[in-house]
Amino acid sequence: MKVVILASGGLDSTVTAALAKRDGYQLYLLTLEYGQRHHIEITRAERIAEWLKVHEHKIIRLDLSVFGRSALTDQIAVPKSRSLAEREAGIPPTYVPARNTIFLSLALAYAEVVKAEAIFIGANIRDYSGYPDCRPEFLKAFSELARLGTKRRVEGCPLEVIAPLLMMTKADIIRQGQNLQVPFEWTHSCYDPDVDGLACGHCDSCLIRLEGFREVGMTDPVAYEKGGL
Amino acid sequence: MKVVILASGGLDSTVTAALAKRDGYQLYLLTLEYGQRHHIEITRAERIAEWLKVHEHKIIRLDLSVFGRSALTDQIAVPKSRSLAEREAGIPPTYVPARNTIFLSLALAYAEVVKAEAIFIGANIRDYSGYPDCRPEFLKAFSELARLGTKRRVEGCPLEVIAPLLMMTKADIIRQGQNLQVPFEWTHSCYDPDVDGLACGHCDSCLIRLEGFREVGMTDPVAYEKGGL
Repeated sequence: MKVVILASGGLDSTVTAALAKRDGYQLYLLTLEYGQRHHIEITRAERIAEWLKVHEHKIIRLDLSVFGRSALTDQIAVPKSRSLAEREAGIPPTYVPARNTIFLSLALAYAEVVKAEAIFIGANIRDYSGYPDCRPEFLKAFSELARLGTKRRVEGCPLEVIAPLLMMTKADIIRQGQNLQVPFEWTHSCYDPDVDGLACGHCDSCLIRLEGFREVGMTDPVAYEKGGL
Repeated sequence: MKVVILASGGLDSTVTAALAKRDGYQLYLLTLEYGQRHHIEITRAERIAEWLKVHEHKIIRLDLSVFGRSALTDQIAVPKSRSLAEREAGIPPTYVPARNTIFLSLALAYAEVVKAEAIFIGANIRDYSGYPDCRPEFLKAFSELARLGTKRRVEGCPLEVIAPLLMMTKADIIRQGQNLQVPFEWTHSCYDPDVDGLACGHCDSCLIRLEGFREVGMTDPVAYEKGGL
């Protein structure tokens, strides 16, 4: 059975893909190059695609920075060293407008072309409660849209949107990854890496990741900037 | 009030934009360059944006041909001279997988950034009954998704998806355009223009357009290939 997986090169999407692989699906990876400042994500996604022995890996370029207004696509500063309370208060400036809607709709096109049964997405509500497009009701609405808006509807085979990590904590996700021998050293989470691609250790994403590894009692194998930790 | 309008340079989206203009909205046009074979659409959309005196016109490039499988993005032949019965039997090969889902999700990102109140789309069910993503229930599902998946939900102002031409025939649309003095000569409908951008006169889109003008008793002012009519 074929599935399309949204793969960013990050920890969550890599564990998601590894879970789908374990369950015997044939993997079609889709990586979006969306004018993010860290091109390193693409390189990592390619390496992970090799490790996963995917059937196909498509990289699609889409310059979302034309719309601006996000720390991930624009020149807004990525917030650093925020406390849990600060991180959980409202929508963070790293939120990219309609990002998951756009990513899922491209995955839907890909799924329709290869006749995939499902789309896997590494969305997670525990760590990203501030992102409206990571919530269960959003994913459910997208499934409904997918059912109505594609040829598959006419052909009678519905397409599922699966978010296996949706309710997991970062520690749970890391434990899942450990069981599946995910090469954590290739996964990239930092919102603001340096020119060599080293993680900063202080943005929300690095903090969540580091707290997760600490909780599991494991050392995060990725390289951080000097003084980053 | 600001509205985002999906503008392809075609007849339907131009009349849609003209209706929004008449109703006093401030127009933010969005044109997708999606690896379509007729680049002429972009040039026409730019000219129409000038005529409409839009507030802003964004053109975003997205190469959907990486996914293949449509006569509009791939090397599949555009069907010609089909009868009404042939045109209405099933999904045509010119259907681009998940096209409107992708377009609407990009419009959603744009709307979120400029804080628009609505997205206008020239979707029309009379002429495109074979396209699952032109149906009212699909547009309704997208409105629901937009409500759930964006920052605006948190900010408490819902965003509407408006398809003013949804139930109109092509003749109705042309009459509307006449009333609004739409420059029909700049609108482009052909799926398969020649190297100079002249319309073929025989693809489904040309046939529907020509039938519409005939019904209204008006001559279509666009140029057709020699022998095309």
